[in-house]
Parts: sequence; structure tokens; C-alpha cells
Amino acid sequence: MKIIPTFIELKTGQGITLHDLMPELHNAVARSGIQNGFVTVTSQHTTTAIAINENEERLVEDVKTFLTRLIPPNGRYLHNDIALRDCPPDEPENAHSHLAAMLLGSSEVIALVDGRLVLGQYQSVMLYELDGPRTRRVSVQIYGE
Amino acid sequence: MKIIPTFIELKTGQGITLHDLMPELHNAVARSGIQNGFVTVTSQHTTTAIAINENEERLVEDVKTFLTRLIPPNGRYLHNDIALRDCPPDEPENAHSHLAAMLLGSSEVIALVDGRLVLGQYQSVMLYELDGPRTRRVSVQIYGE
Amino acid sequence: MKIIPTFIELKTGQGITLHDLMPELHNAVARSGIQNGFVTVTSQHTTTAIAINENEERLVEDVKTFLTRLIPPNGRYLHNDIALRDCPPDEPENAHSHLAAMLLGSSEVIALVDGRLVLGQYQSVMLYELDGPRTRRVSVQIYGE
Repeated sequence: MKIIPTFIELKTGQGITLHDLMPELHNAVARSGIQNGFVTVTSQHTTTAIAINENEERLVEDVKTFLTRLIPPNGRYLHNDIALRDCPPDEPENAHSHLAAMLLGSSEVIALVDGRLVLGQYQSVMLYELDGPRTRRVSVQIYGE
Repeated sequence: MKIIPTFIELKTGQGITLHDLMPELHNAVARSGIQNGFVTVTSQHTTTAIAINENEERLVEDVKTFLTRLIPPNGRYLHNDIALRDCPPDEPENAHSHLAAMLLGSSEVIALVDGRLVLGQYQSVMLYELDGPRTRRVSVQIYGE
Repeated sequence: MKIIPTFIELKTGQGITLHDLMPELHNAVARSGIQNGFVTVTSQHTTTAIAINENEERLVEDVKTFLTRLIPPNGRYLHNDIALRDCPPDEPENAHSHLAAMLLGSSEVIALVDGRLVLGQYQSVMLYELDGPRTRRVSVQIYGE
């Protein structure tokens, strides 16, 4: 079994933004030469998440609205009392971003058959930026033969 | 390492329904002949999810009630303005289903030891239909020796 | 490819508690001798979850507060009518714990490169106890070469 470790690096937008990873995933799979196996996609940050859904622009706006209502950025969170924590004074107040990342999850695993990711027609693996803008990395590892 | 790609296909019920995949998973593992390795289970749709929990009928009703309250189907969602999107006019108004799928997640990975899935006594891998009824497919891939 | 199945067993705290699995994960990886591959971490219970986030003590308190508000333990749940179910009379009333486990998810998969788990600086794989205290098990399986 071959193992091909890769990373996707990207610059994200302000606040909550969704980034479709499919073009980079297709490229990484093609470059790997692996035909059958699987791919793991794992977030490398505590305020980003990995989830699979439809990349439709109006739905993306619904995602932002929903997450902002479910976990209000200006709510009362102990993690946001930066002065009371053992951390640099310029830490962002981003407890809501951590909570959203936890709910959305940090990894997905996708089967690879005959050189193609086994996903439905409308499924895109996406990075959910929950506290942007930042430079972010996603671990993409391809396994198989 | 052997890789056995399979699919589970099933017809789902109205609205939100949960479908226990354990009988099909046990069959697929037995047929594969693989004793040690792992199994990946990945949803093939943007309005279904994969999660592991107890298949208890009253809890299943609680799941429906909880998700319906958390993400009301008749809420205001931009994705549901079908006429404003570049899509067929008969698209369903199912933004709530997409949002629930995102939160629940699209894949789980389970270890396989001595021909048995490593899961606790009450754990069932389930397909969460969030916009039924439909015909749905789940990717189940078995890896190992 | 080598496959090393292991378990982490731990005693959890009262109600909702988070347990950082990184020391045990690092040990298991070191003992396995596997340098390149991946690790799957899967909950073995229907009222625990696996998620990756920052183990910061004030954030952990925010997690407890958030989950308790989102899914109140004393809400009305059919699963909590123990007498109406086919189960022992001393079953806990823990529908809220099941619902939280479903949202948080039961597994994560992490790449392993040169003997190190591919995770960001602040990421800890954690067991979320949602109905403690109990003795719990987590399946940790290491694959690779």
C-alpha cells in the first residue's frame, strides 16, 4: 500500500467562510497515481472544520446565518476572558468558533475507486473557516494501490 | 491489503428517518473475508448523514423532534428561494436538511478485529435521512487482511 | 501494512467532562513502531463522542454550558420514559447525552507521518463524556508501516 501525505494551504475570508476543496483533492488524487484506496481529510486548526455538503452560494449564506444564531459570536464565553488565561494578550475572542468547529467535526474519510473519490453528485468536501481571515492548512492523505 | 468497495442502497421514509445499517454492515464484512482492518461508511448525499448511536425507537422520535426544533423546516433560508437559483424549478426546499447533514457529519470509520466491527453494545451505525422519502446510497469500504 | 488495535480505558467525571487523549495516543503510536500511516479513534459508547479541539480549561467550561443550553438535560424526551421502554428500570434518563453524542460524532481519523500525528499545535483529540461518571473505552487503531 502506498501512502501519499499532502497538505492543502489556503487563505480564508472574513469570519465564517466555506472553501471547496474538491479541485485540490482531485489534483492530489491524480498526482498520487493511486487508483483504489481511500483519502483522509483532517483540519489542522481548532477553529476550522471539515464537512461535506453542497457548495451552493445561497446555502453557504444560510450556513453563516445558522451558525451565527446557534452560537452567537458576542455571547458570554469564559474562553474570551483573554486576561484571565495564560496566553498572549492579543489572542482572538473566538470561543464561538471553537464550539462550531467541535460540532462540525475535524475529519472525513472518502473511499477511492478506479481513481475517483466515491462521493455523490452534489457533495463537496469543504473547509469551514470559522474565525477568518487566516492562512490555513488541511491534511490530505491518500492511501492505496 | 485487500480493499472491498461496496454500497448499501435503501429506500427511506418521509422527512427525517433513521436507518440502522448494522445488518448490511455485518453482511458486507462477512462476505469480504477480511478479518483485521477497518471499515469506512460515507454518505453519498448532501441531505443525509452518517452517525453512530442507539437504535431505540423512542430516542429516534427525540432525534426528529430535536432536529426539527433546532433547524425548523419552515424557517427563512436563502437556499429555498428556488426561483433565484440556477437549478430546476422542482428542486425541494430543503435548506434545513443540508444544515442538519453538515452538523451530523458524512462519515465514520470503524476498526475491524477478528472479523468483528469494534463497536460498543448499543452502537449502531445509522443513515440519517433528512429529506425523505428517497432512494439513497451509502459507500461502505472494507480494508484489511 | 501493520494493524495495531488498542483501547484507551478511562474513568470519567460527573455529567459532561472532556478527556484529552493525546498522551495515550502518543504512547500508542510510539509503542506500535509505525512511522507512516494513520490512526482511527472511535468512541465505544452512545453517550460519549470523539472530537478534536483545544484543551483550554475555560473553553471546556464553555463547552459544558453550550451543550447544556442547546440540549437541556431536563427537557421532555420520550427516551427518558424508562417505564415505557423494554429495558431495566434503573436505566439513566440521558436522552440529551445521546443527542449531543450524535451531533459531536463518534470517530476521527488522523494521518501519521514520520512517527507523528498530523495535527495542529492546539489540536487535542478528546473524549467527550456526556453522561458521566462511568468507565469508558475508546478504540484506537494504528495502521501503516
